[in-house]
Amino acid sequence: MKRWNTVAIVGVGLIGGSIGLALRQRGLAERVVGIGRRQTSLRTARRAGAVTSTTTDLGKGVAEADFVVVCSPVGRIADHVCQAAQFCPAGTLITDAGSTKQVIVEALDGKLPRGCRFLGSHPLAGSEKSGASNAMADLFEGRLAILTPTKNTRAEDFDLLEHFWSSLGSVVVQMTAEEHDRALALSSHLPHAVAAALAASVPEACFRFSGPGLLDTTRIASGDPDLWTQIFCQNRANVLAALDAFLRHLTALGDAVRQGDVEPLKRLLALAKKNRDALGS
Amino acid sequence: MKRWNTVAIVGVGLIGGSIGLALRQRGLAERVVGIGRRQTSLRTARRAGAVTSTTTDLGKGVAEADFVVVCSPVGRIADHVCQAAQFCPAGTLITDAGSTKQVIVEALDGKLPRGCRFLGSHPLAGSEKSGASNAMADLFEGRLAILTPTKNTRAEDFDLLEHFWSSLGSVVVQMTAEEHDRALALSSHLPHAVAAALAASVPEACFRFSGPGLLDTTRIASGDPDLWTQIFCQNRANVLAALDAFLRHLTALGDAVRQGDVEPLKRLLALAKKNRDALGS
Repeated sequence: MKRWNTVAIVGVGLIGGSIGLALRQRGLAERVVGIGRRQTSLRTARRAGAVTSTTTDLGKGVAEADFVVVCSPVGRIADHVCQAAQFCPAGTLITDAGSTKQVIVEALDGKLPRGCRFLGSHPLAGSEKSGASNAMADLFEGRLAILTPTKNTRAEDFDLLEHFWSSLGSVVVQMTAEEHDRALALSSHLPHAVAAALAASVPEACFRFSGPGLLDTTRIASGDPDLWTQIFCQNRANVLAALDAFLRHLTALGDAVRQGDVEPLKRLLALAKKNRDALGS
Repeated sequence: MKRWNTVAIVGVGLIGGSIGLALRQRGLAERVVGIGRRQTSLRTARRAGAVTSTTTDLGKGVAEADFVVVCSPVGRIADHVCQAAQFCPAGTLITDAGSTKQVIVEALDGKLPRGCRFLGSHPLAGSEKSGASNAMADLFEGRLAILTPTKNTRAEDFDLLEHFWSSLGSVVVQMTAEEHDRALALSSHLPHAVAAALAASVPEACFRFSGPGLLDTTRIASGDPDLWTQIFCQNRANVLAALDAFLRHLTALGDAVRQGDVEPLKRLLALAKKNRDALGS
């Protein structure tokens, strides 16, 4: 298994911290440099054992990296990748872990200076919890990591990135950035929008009547509002299309309830149950 | 603590089975008679240790009961309570465990023959799993049990029912049936409608991209379609009002995404996070 000398991780929250922890615990990297804006986050990452050194200076942090992973909020990824490409060793491969891909890939693909290349990643792992204090070395174990190569992508870069995520335990799949954003709008961004609207709809007076149903259904609404604002805005068209599909089903359900139309209501609930049972636990 | 001679449970699924199991394990009832339509369910309840005897004949099952709990799907509760009142000992108290209350209470309150009385209950416990094979003796431990007395309710009946649920570990609260149905439409029925519409909206091709977010948000959509059809139809007006409140928030979110209106989007997501954080885990 390939061993890296220095991996630089820009953004050491839950995802960046978990990557660092996994690299360290699996003995995959000699040095892991954690780069962030806030000393408190960097300290948390050091204490969690996710990084071997830290800095708030992105240029210094990537100076000796033989691989860079940008785990910033999606709205800052392109900017951080460009900065990294200016200061890292010439010819370095840079990836990200962003929940959207099209805007980021379009901004970076084939456009980095000094022989550096960007190849997008999205590990389908995470939690409503944030911060390196919640980092887990096994966060990526058995989970999908989506790579989004383009016609500019070199085969050896793809292989290297595939190896990287595989060595953290992920199952790697390949899609275009467009396919990624369309699929994730339905499987991830729509659930977040729905959970947030639901959590916003329940008045405080009803909190005491919450059972496991409301708790499960709204759990991801605890996610970071800034981060999700960026995700929704970067994947606007697909998110709106997914919302439309959802609203068609919810409106059909509401109409059936209004008219006491038992059979269509049962059919819709049966389709929902069939889908949910197929998703597994 | 009061010990019952014979408790009859009509409907031995998850709730009825868990009541039986709790009564048995806590030594609160000498005999627990399980009454159901299907021999397989009754056998499951016997094997789970939730009942001491079973029958498919409701009349025979309640003949010696000093307390009857009807745990049928909400659309059949009123009918089963009426049947029980014809065959149980004169003057017996009958309750239910239904997720709706107004339709049931209106059908039964002060209307039972032979000195029998109905007083509605709703234990806020359950799961997307069904059947006595999933029954748990501690299902009601620390959970709310809502009682819905009316002006016809005798104080001693209320005390008895309060004692019953308390002895299973529940925290008892009192509401009118109207208040109950309005609150539960928001805290339970709306989440189910939303989870079902979401599960119905996600195409099979996207299932492999599901993360914990989609899984949590749709978990309750695995619930029984027949049961939930009955709940939605019995609580129609409140469910429709709750859907409207939800749609207002989701539409606002969609509009903000469409217009790239970052601040209103952040505010809505921040309100959702505040509410969700307040709900606890």
